[in-house]
Amino acid sequence: MIIPINEVKEYLLSLQNMICETFSLLEKEKFPEDRWQHHQGGGGISRVLTDGSVIEKGGVNFSHILGGDLPPAATEKRPELKGLAFQALGVSAVIHPVNPYVPTSHMNVRFFLAENNVFWFGGGFDLTPYYGFAEDCVLWHEFAKKACEPFGKEVYPTFKKWCDDYFYLKHRQEPRGIGGLFFDDLHEWGFEQCFAFIKNIGKYYLEAYKIILEKRKNISYTQREKDFQKYRRGRYVEFNLLYDRGTLFGLQTSGRTESILMSLPPEVVWKYQWHPDPGSAEAELYDKFLKPRNWV
Amino acid sequence: MIIPINEVKEYLLSLQNMICETFSLLEKEKFPEDRWQHHQGGGGISRVLTDGSVIEKGGVNFSHILGGDLPPAATEKRPELKGLAFQALGVSAVIHPVNPYVPTSHMNVRFFLAENNVFWFGGGFDLTPYYGFAEDCVLWHEFAKKACEPFGKEVYPTFKKWCDDYFYLKHRQEPRGIGGLFFDDLHEWGFEQCFAFIKNIGKYYLEAYKIILEKRKNISYTQREKDFQKYRRGRYVEFNLLYDRGTLFGLQTSGRTESILMSLPPEVVWKYQWHPDPGSAEAELYDKFLKPRNWV
Repeated sequence: MIIPINEVKEYLLSLQNMICETFSLLEKEKFPEDRWQHHQGGGGISRVLTDGSVIEKGGVNFSHILGGDLPPAATEKRPELKGLAFQALGVSAVIHPVNPYVPTSHMNVRFFLAENNVFWFGGGFDLTPYYGFAEDCVLWHEFAKKACEPFGKEVYPTFKKWCDDYFYLKHRQEPRGIGGLFFDDLHEWGFEQCFAFIKNIGKYYLEAYKIILEKRKNISYTQREKDFQKYRRGRYVEFNLLYDRGTLFGLQTSGRTESILMSLPPEVVWKYQWHPDPGSAEAELYDKFLKPRNWV
Repeated sequence: MIIPINEVKEYLLSLQNMICETFSLLEKEKFPEDRWQHHQGGGGISRVLTDGSVIEKGGVNFSHILGGDLPPAATEKRPELKGLAFQALGVSAVIHPVNPYVPTSHMNVRFFLAENNVFWFGGGFDLTPYYGFAEDCVLWHEFAKKACEPFGKEVYPTFKKWCDDYFYLKHRQEPRGIGGLFFDDLHEWGFEQCFAFIKNIGKYYLEAYKIILEKRKNISYTQREKDFQKYRRGRYVEFNLLYDRGTLFGLQTSGRTESILMSLPPEVVWKYQWHPDPGSAEAELYDKFLKPRNWV
């Protein structure tokens, strides 16, 4: 079988479009588009909307990179792949909302195709609330579970745990948010099944986040909640610059810096030794939501 | 000769005090003090002043850490030191001023003492302006040169270049600021000379930054300059979380997170694809100041 890379590419471009179209409906404007070339070959389309009424900064990035040989990060676990020419395609979305009652969301799907029909998929989606709503966490994980269900009973718990383990700030001993799904190196189901799963990731991410966004975007808030949102966004920056493999890999391989760092929040605050008052709504985030747990 | 570690410790504590006392004179309050213990032994004193009228966030940290064996970061270049028990002492200062016409400054001095009288010093100081003043850059580097002069003609140019090379954001192809001095693994002059040099680092940092701070702190500014300062602070965060060895080493070895990250600026903004208007004061920073050059 020849791997139909063009089908994957078409799907990823349509997913990027779909995400932008869906969230544009909340705003007066569309996501502006930047097309760029990668110095090694290939390139991408970055779409970033800023200062919307609902979305403070939202980035949806498509990239298609060609490479002479797979980078160490990709061959660490499979040394037999060293030196293979490859193509890497992916879509990443990070939405930082205006309203602190709306969580930040992140979704990524990526596809690697190397010589000899070697391929794998990776990706997932996760949610980072500032003020938690248990019903939103349940919904998010129910949708994650639905995305996994056709592919086996073990898929959701396995990729849910992988997400909890991955999006963890060791230096804070804190998860980044309430998790979702994370997976990498997925190939053992065969191309068709893996590709179908990827499509579910895009579909269920969009549906789940749309529901949460619409439900919470009009809750009234004060400077206090906005301040807490800006403070917590600092954790997002810390995670992405200290741990996130995609970010570090992109920066180390001279990717397009502005597209890679579009994931960083618009306004961020660091305070020394700040802690929420015990019993406050802010403390509840730490006590109730920033603990890995089974939401469904 | 027995290395007089207590003299180093006393000097470092007095340096921390001197820095805090000097900058407190500009504010109505002193630098509040936190004492903490390290889980491996030793501990530190963190002094962080926030929301002052001149200093938006200023952190001056003393630490004295004991370890069973030297970490890989410290033995990479000298494998013969592997496994030695050690003590590490240091003072770091990072001052983020309110006024965008005042540059951010950073100073660090550190001392490692391992078994068998093995020791070395490291440190330096560097300046990160938002709006550049050539005379301030000249002064800063003149003071850096003066600090080096008693120790040989090659010291200033060597440690100046090391600073330019170290404080460089590869992913932006930008220096962090206008440099200063950086050095590590300094032991070949013998303990007495090295210690005298370290004292000069503290002394000339404080003198130079005090002059610049007092000269620029009352320049009037508008939201435009404040916005640019917040934007440029993003580069400071990127450098510290992506590249700074002290930060990464501290976080990886479970140091006190809040003391390590006290270096991060208080309010930061990331904008996608933002560029200063050609010919503007903001463009001048990039065109004239963020290029490694000889200021003296």
